[in-house]
Amino acid sequence: MEVEIKFKAYDGVEDRIKEIAEFVIEKLEEDLYFNHPCRDFKKTDEALRVRKDKEGIKITYKGAKVDRETKSREEIKLKIDDFDKAIELFERLGFKPVRKVVKFRKIYRMGDAIICYDEVEGLGSFVEVEVESDVKDFDAAKQKVFEIAKQLGFDIKNSIRKSYLELLEENAS
Amino acid sequence: MEVEIKFKAYDGVEDRIKEIAEFVIEKLEEDLYFNHPCRDFKKTDEALRVRKDKEGIKITYKGAKVDRETKSREEIKLKIDDFDKAIELFERLGFKPVRKVVKFRKIYRMGDAIICYDEVEGLGSFVEVEVESDVKDFDAAKQKVFEIAKQLGFDIKNSIRKSYLELLEENAS
Repeated sequence: MEVEIKFKAYDGVEDRIKEIAEFVIEKLEEDLYFNHPCRDFKKTDEALRVRKDKEGIKITYKGAKVDRETKSREEIKLKIDDFDKAIELFERLGFKPVRKVVKFRKIYRMGDAIICYDEVEGLGSFVEVEVESDVKDFDAAKQKVFEIAKQLGFDIKNSIRKSYLELLEENAS
Repeated sequence: MEVEIKFKAYDGVEDRIKEIAEFVIEKLEEDLYFNHPCRDFKKTDEALRVRKDKEGIKITYKGAKVDRETKSREEIKLKIDDFDKAIELFERLGFKPVRKVVKFRKIYRMGDAIICYDEVEGLGSFVEVEVESDVKDFDAAKQKVFEIAKQLGFDIKNSIRKSYLELLEENAS
């Protein structure tokens, strides 16, 4: 389970992140999202993507969001050896490529929490705070994520539950 | 494209294989096959499986057979890092596990051709001859595969186009 909250970045937020968290890595992430051959991921609130970055290539499935305040959801990640072959595989299985999402992500660590500062092509800058958790620790993980968001000066009420994919799709329509 | 022909093994065929080809590796292969959430792979003649053996873990998609005499078909292979997560991923996407196919495979090489001697749990022993080929080289690859099959004492008329999965499904019904 990925317990996650997201906000639009404000000027200077990166300095606040650096005060409380330790820089880990920065990388360009290129994601290609797919829709399912026989169900509409927009309606089921699921997602399937193939990601390429300098650390490697990954397939990620995201289940429906489980919570009203955050964008927490089940995630299954699979490391793979080839981006183009993964796309070919899903296309042969009837999955439809929906959209590319490209961002430059700076990752910071604070204990077992991750803070990402994302510059998303076509959308602007965002901050994501996330903690991985078992289902039984969900509430504690959520409180931790809220606490860090507050330390960074965010109001939980302004959290954005939509994914970058959804935000880009909205802008396009 | 995987140009491939398969026969029921006869007593002594392994000695004939050793005379013309070089031993490469032997391994237990554990495959789990899936059916598609909204089309019937039995009817479309496709296959999707996750394989685990001592060399690693792989997702393989096989397209419909393209030829009447052989079991040649398009194959897309993806190396992955986790067998159980791959199963979970496909299950979440609505794919249905159909059956496990377990075999002990001895792989021999003869030039760019591969000869496999397979002992398949529940089915007995088989010999597969295969060559990877571009679509444009298909006929040459097929001739090479036929030639090797004849050298091993097989009559092309007795080739088995059904997959191990299909043979096991037949036995079960």
